Order: sequence, then C-alpha cells, then structure tokens
Amino acid sequence: MNALDSFRSLAREYHLIQSSASVLGWDQETYMPADAGAFRAEQLSWLSARAHELATSARWQDSLEQALAEVAEEPSSVRKDLLEMKRRLDLARKLPVALVARDTQTSSLAKRAWAEARETADFSLFLPHLAALVDIHREKAELWGYVDEPYDALLSCYERGCTTAQLSEEFDVLRPELTEIARAAAERSRVRFRPLPAGPYPIAEQKALNEKVASAMGYSFSAGRIDTTTHPFCSNLGPRDVRLTTRYDEEDFCSSLFGVLHEAGHGMYEQGLSTEHPGMASCDAVSLGIHESQSRLWENHIGRSLAFWEKWYPVACGHFPQLRGHSLEDFMSHVHAVNFSAIRVESDEATYDLHILLRFELERGMFRGDFDPAELPFVWDERFEQLMGFRPETVAQGCLQDIHWSMGAFGYFPTYTLGNLNASQLMRAACCDDSVIRAIQQADYVPLLGWLRERIHCHGAMEDPSTLIENATGQKPRALHHLDHLRLRYLG
Amino acid sequence: MNALDSFRSLAREYHLIQSSASVLGWDQETYMPADAGAFRAEQLSWLSARAHELATSARWQDSLEQALAEVAEEPSSVRKDLLEMKRRLDLARKLPVALVARDTQTSSLAKRAWAEARETADFSLFLPHLAALVDIHREKAELWGYVDEPYDALLSCYERGCTTAQLSEEFDVLRPELTEIARAAAERSRVRFRPLPAGPYPIAEQKALNEKVASAMGYSFSAGRIDTTTHPFCSNLGPRDVRLTTRYDEEDFCSSLFGVLHEAGHGMYEQGLSTEHPGMASCDAVSLGIHESQSRLWENHIGRSLAFWEKWYPVACGHFPQLRGHSLEDFMSHVHAVNFSAIRVESDEATYDLHILLRFELERGMFRGDFDPAELPFVWDERFEQLMGFRPETVAQGCLQDIHWSMGAFGYFPTYTLGNLNASQLMRAACCDDSVIRAIQQADYVPLLGWLRERIHCHGAMEDPSTLIENATGQKPRALHHLDHLRLRYLG
Repeated sequence: MNALDSFRSLAREYHLIQSSASVLGWDQETYMPADAGAFRAEQLSWLSARAHELATSARWQDSLEQALAEVAEEPSSVRKDLLEMKRRLDLARKLPVALVARDTQTSSLAKRAWAEARETADFSLFLPHLAALVDIHREKAELWGYVDEPYDALLSCYERGCTTAQLSEEFDVLRPELTEIARAAAERSRVRFRPLPAGPYPIAEQKALNEKVASAMGYSFSAGRIDTTTHPFCSNLGPRDVRLTTRYDEEDFCSSLFGVLHEAGHGMYEQGLSTEHPGMASCDAVSLGIHESQSRLWENHIGRSLAFWEKWYPVACGHFPQLRGHSLEDFMSHVHAVNFSAIRVESDEATYDLHILLRFELERGMFRGDFDPAELPFVWDERFEQLMGFRPETVAQGCLQDIHWSMGAFGYFPTYTLGNLNASQLMRAACCDDSVIRAIQQADYVPLLGWLRERIHCHGAMEDPSTLIENATGQKPRALHHLDHLRLRYLG
Repeated sequence: MNALDSFRSLAREYHLIQSSASVLGWDQETYMPADAGAFRAEQLSWLSARAHELATSARWQDSLEQALAEVAEEPSSVRKDLLEMKRRLDLARKLPVALVARDTQTSSLAKRAWAEARETADFSLFLPHLAALVDIHREKAELWGYVDEPYDALLSCYERGCTTAQLSEEFDVLRPELTEIARAAAERSRVRFRPLPAGPYPIAEQKALNEKVASAMGYSFSAGRIDTTTHPFCSNLGPRDVRLTTRYDEEDFCSSLFGVLHEAGHGMYEQGLSTEHPGMASCDAVSLGIHESQSRLWENHIGRSLAFWEKWYPVACGHFPQLRGHSLEDFMSHVHAVNFSAIRVESDEATYDLHILLRFELERGMFRGDFDPAELPFVWDERFEQLMGFRPETVAQGCLQDIHWSMGAFGYFPTYTLGNLNASQLMRAACCDDSVIRAIQQADYVPLLGWLRERIHCHGAMEDPSTLIENATGQKPRALHHLDHLRLRYLG
C-alpha cells in the first residue's frame, strides 16, 4: 500500500470510531431507556478517547507526512485534501492534554449549573462557570493563534478562515437594515395574520406529510430516516446513514414540517458528500456556516415560498380536513408571520438574525474584555432593547436562554447568520440558471438539488467556505442578497 | 489501585466495547436505513476486533494473573469470578488467529450460500460450506480439548460443563415419552381447537396490551423497550439497557404477545444480573440453557397458564372487541394448540423438543463421522419421519430451514431443550414456596420473579449451569419434570 492509501485507511478507521459514537449519540436522544444514561456516557467517552488518540498519534502524523511527501505530483484536489487534514492535526496538537481535560470537565459542570441557573432564573449560579470557560477559551485562542483578536481563533473553529473583522464589517451593514425590515415586517404581519384553524393535527398525518415533502425535495430515506426528539437535529451515522429528527405540536403541523425541512437541508448536504474516502476532509462538511446555508435554504427560501405551498397546501388539506375552508393566502400569513420574541429559537426568518447580532457583539465583547462576564445580564438586556424594542422579562429569557455558552461554544452563533447570508446568495445564483428557476416555480427541486450537489456538496471541506461561496456564485460573500430576499418576501 | 480493581477496570473496558457493538447491532436490526449496511459491518468489525484484542492481550492476561494471586484470601465468590474469566481467556487463547480468521471468513460465505440454497431448495449450494465448517469446528474442538468426543467441546461453548454423554442419556429418556405425549396432545387439540375470531387485531392495540403484560410480569421499561423486527430477539446494550423486539400479525395478537413474553423472560434475566462489575463473569449470563429456561418459563409456564389468562383475557377483550363473544375456554384451545409442523420455529410447546432431538442426533452424528455432510438431507428426512410421522416437502423445509449451522453454531440447538427442562424444574421448585404459588394463582408474579432473581439471576456466570439448577431446586437437573408438566397441561 502506498503512503496515501495508508493514511486514507487511518482516516477511515477514525471515521469508523466517530460514526459509531454518532450511532450511540443518536440512540441516546431517540430511543435509549432512561436508566441507561450513565453507562452510555462511559461508552461514548471510551469511543471519543480512541478517536482522539488515533487522530493525534505519532502514527497518524507520520503517515500524513509521508502521504504529503508522496503526492507532490498528484492532482491538486488530493493535496488539498491532505493539507486540510494537516491543518486539523496541527490545531489538535497545539492543545495540551491537561487543557483539553480541564475544558471537558469545566463545561460538563457548567452545563449542569446553567440548567439550574436557567430553571431558577439565577445568573449567579452560572457566572463562575462562564468566567472559567471564557478563561479556558482565551488560553485555547492563544495556543491556536489569531490575526487581530482571540475571538478570531474561536470563530475559525466553526468557520474556517473567517475573521472577526470581516464578520463585524458585514454585520455592521446588516444591523440597521435588518432592524428596519423586521419592524416593518412585524407591523405588516400584525395586520395580515390569520391564525391556523384549530387542531388537532394528528401526529400520524403530520409524519405522512413530512415524509412526502422530504422525499420530494430529494432527501433519501434509503440512507436516512426521521425520528422524534425534543430538540430536532441531523446526525451523520456513516457514509449512507444520515438521520433527522423533529418534534410534533398537535395544534400546528407547521412546527414539525419546518423542522423537517430545516434538518433535511442539513441531511441532503451530508447525503451529497463524497463517500469515497470516509474520514478525509474531501468527504466532510466544511463549516457550520455552509451547513446552515443548506438548512435555511430549504426551510426558508423553498419551504416558505408561495410556489412550494401552491403544490403542497392541497396535499396538506388532504391530511388535515380542517384546512379545507382556510385559503392559501390566509395560510401564507401564518408561514410568513413575523413578531419580536425574547427567545431566539422561537423567532422567525425576519427577526432571527437580530438575535445573532446580539450574541456576536456580546461574545466578542467578553473576549476583548470590554465587559466582565458578571455584567452579561445587564449588557444583554440593554443591547436587546436597542435591537428589539423591549426587555426580556427574566434572565432565563435573556442571556441564560441558550445552552451554547455553557458548552464553551464561543464563536458558534455567528454561523447561523452566515448560513442565512450564504443561503440567500446561493439561491440568487442558482435562480440565474433557467432550468433551476423554472423547476422551482413548479415546486420541482431536482435541478436545484443538482446545482447544490455540484457547487457545494461534492467539494467537501477542501475549500474555505468563502472560496466555496465565491466559486459557486461568482461573487465574494455579500450580505445584501439576504436583505434583498427579506425585503422582497416581507415588504414586497 | 490493587490488582483486582485493575483487572475489573479492564473487564469494564471490554464491556464498554462489546455493549457499544450491541447498540450498533440492535440499531442494524431495528431502525438502520437500508443503504447503511456495508459501513455498519465495518463499524461492527472494528469494535469486535478491539474487544478481541483486549481480551486476549498480554496486559489482560498479566492483570488477571496478578488479581488471582492477590485474592487467595478473598471470599470464594471473588475467586470464582476471576477463575471463570481465566477459563474464558484460556479457551480464547487456544485458537490461533489464522483459524479464527478462517472461521469468520468461512461462515460469512456460508451464510450467503445457505440463504441461496434455502431460497432455491438446492442443498448442493450449501454442502461445500457445511463440510468446511464441520472441519473447522473439528479443529477447534481438538484445540479446546474434550472428554469423550469432539462434540463435547462444541456443546460446552454454549453450556459450560455439559457433556454429550449426559445429554444423550437425558434425551434418550425424553424421546419415547415426548413422542407419545406429542401425538396424544395433537389428537386432543384437533378435537378441541377453536380458531381465534377474525382480525384485524390492530398493531397499536397489540403494543398497548403487550406493554401492560410485560410490565406486570416485572420487565422494566426504564431499563428497556420493545421494538419491531422480523425475528424477535433480546439484546443487552449496557447494564441498565436490555431491549426486546417482537413481530406483529394483524390476524393473531398472540403472535406478538408470546414473542414478548419469551423475550421478556430473557430480558428479566439480563435485568436481574448484577451491575456491579460489568464485563466480569459475575455480571454475565451463564449459559444459553439457563437463558432459555427464563424465556420458556415466562412464555410457556406462565403465559400459557389458565390463571394468567383469567386475569389477562378480559383485558385483551378490552383491546379487541371481536373477542367478546369468544369464551376463555375456546381461547385456551388456541393457546394450547398442538400440531406437527415441519418447521421448528412454528412448532408448539408439545412438539418443539422433537425438533431439537433431531438436530442433536444429526449434529453429533456428523461430528462422530457416522455420516457425511453430503448425506444430511436423506438422514434428516428419514429421522424426521420416525419422530414426526411425515416427511418435509422440500429440503428448504428440512435441513436447510435453520440459519444456525451456516454460522458454525454446532452444539447450540440442544440448549433450547435444556431451557425447557430447566424451566420445568425451576417452576416446580418455585411452586413449593407457598407465597410463590398463591401469587401465581392470582396472576401476581412479584414473588416468582423474586425467587428467580435470588436463585438464578444474581449468581451470574459464577456456577456451572447444572450446579445452579441443583442449588436452586435441590435436585440435579432431571428431564422428568418437563414430561410431568407436558402431561398435566396437554393430557391432564
């Protein structure tokens, strides 16, 4: 076996371990009996220790170096694939084992403290853990290195090559326009909104409709399935095994359906990745901002469009007889409802990014030392009011609402908005293709999915996300396409 | 850490790997999408290689030897636990890696060939694979060693300490009596039998009834669950995670229910094992013959008893209105139906063991060289006719009906009948306890389960199965209790 094949086979082994852990993780969220939790944590930690051991081993490093030495004459895609693996290895090897252990330990305690703090709306329970996590992530940032400020290093964990300065510039463009659009859209929605006819919308019927829609969009059920969890997610359990979950509200079938559209967007991206060399960057998703572009594109650009519902509303009426007297126009006022919520996960397409702008500013501020973690609740409420026009009622509905910071996921939130911006830019570019746009107008998504497969999915993690978007759309990433999309949909 | 704790922590690691594989195996049978099979096989094979590596490593052996040296003064249970681990290690280390690999490879090919041979009713497709597997298992038997004949070594893989001579003696007692009982029972059933009222028996109602019954028997749903598969099974996914499956027939709710009773018997045994030192013999089931005693006890002795149905038939009538005009007596003629079938898995309590006697004789005969694998179909049909009074229509309904031999599981079948014998002996002993029998008459199974927990479950694999039965019942294992049970139920 040559050096390249040897390294690929190590990468495959790594993926075998990681994906086995994904099966256990998926089961934990879907079907695992209550008492099995403690041992499951041990099983998962054994698997992740083996994966970490392998991917930071001398054997791994030597094999990778040998492969890199061998492929000087190979096509650039083979070299890029190895270079990205090398970049990941270098990052992993920069963190001392003791720091990784302290990080794991601290965030495990922090998660429990956060849950209690949110439950009792008492920020002081969470504060020492938050402060410790900020310190640990400052250390990590110093070890990884950065261009301008430590937050750069955290951000690029989730969004390769993305800098705080770039992001800040883009978000500065968004902020005033988004605020304006959201206010006008909420006002218009208040006037037009017609509530959905009363439930129940039986869960079995919701499931049947969701599967029809997901299939028609192009999500493959022979390489996937949909189960039920409190928090919807998409998980990759192996090269041909990408599963979704959603949750059901018997009073509103749109809740589970839009959950499925979103997760199926993630799922079709994963199903579209190459399966040639599992564990290599070429077969891996590139970033959260690209991942989220796929989920938002299918959930919002497709799933909230009139053409989509012209096809699917009659089908929904077949499943839910109470819809039959309710016009498509009234139904669309529900799909396009806009109102300001204190809670990010309950907010709509027009207001969602304001929640992200807030979190970005606050994370960045904490890491620059603009304010102390102890001041977070006050700063949150103040900035929230500037953006949204009201204050959260409690700290549980304010800065304690999200789990992310308790897991040490600083730099994660901005990828949600990057996803929205990328989705709008991709949609605009895809619709320049006549066959794509004509099909979309008939609610036929085969050409669109083909376009995404070719421009985004099949490239895996071989390009930086911004290069990927530029190659796919012919333009550098630009926020204005998203503003255009929101204006057209909500104020047009 | 002392040597004992060190070895226990290795055993725990072994169990973490094995039980992770069990999660993947369970998922493969229940929810895994169709296209995921190839990669799943790789995931499973990686895990089982790691488990095998660990449990045959020098580290494992040294640690075990050190622990054994340390516990000379410990209570005998601690020593027994280690000695059983030592016995297992010695067995595993007796097989050269090349033979294990040849075995795996051969049985993998054999399974495919068997499926095709059964499909086309063409024994010649399976014959070379069967011959190769018999050769490999002769080699294994020689390496393991045996008392009288190679088949001893195979048998004791599944039933520790059991010899062919003992088994043969017990089965010789059974054969004539069983044949006689089965014939009389079939004749009586032919006269008495009343078919179940026509379906459908909706699957959702079957599920609800099955869960009530399994809970009432003592199967814990906080450490388990029931899913749907073509072939029912019970799987241990961790110390507090023991899952069952069953299959549904909309024309006969008894099919899924008796499946659940059987698997819940296995499940309650697993749920009753100690969880103190996962991976040690003290926390492991001892043998298939004991495992099967638990499933058969709950399925047949409890689940086919009149007292059980006096309680549960009215509940079943609540779920299935078509039963309401159908008397309990008529229903019992369905539960106690007896007829001779060519197929083992479709046969009833009174004829089942005849199928096992046949397989035992044939396996033993092949390993003694009494006949050649090529003659199997002829020998099968001839002996089958002697026992059952008719010949199978095709070889697919004859010696190709079971998957076991294609997996190299020689010596496995007799444990089904051992399970029946043990179940009858345990039931008889348990019913000598007044509180157990009085409760059973009220369909209250708490005392019975307590009795089994104390006499069987909590001992794990620390005693030989025959010692366990002798300690639990005060008698050496004897076939006559089972004959008494069958006579009383089917001819009484």
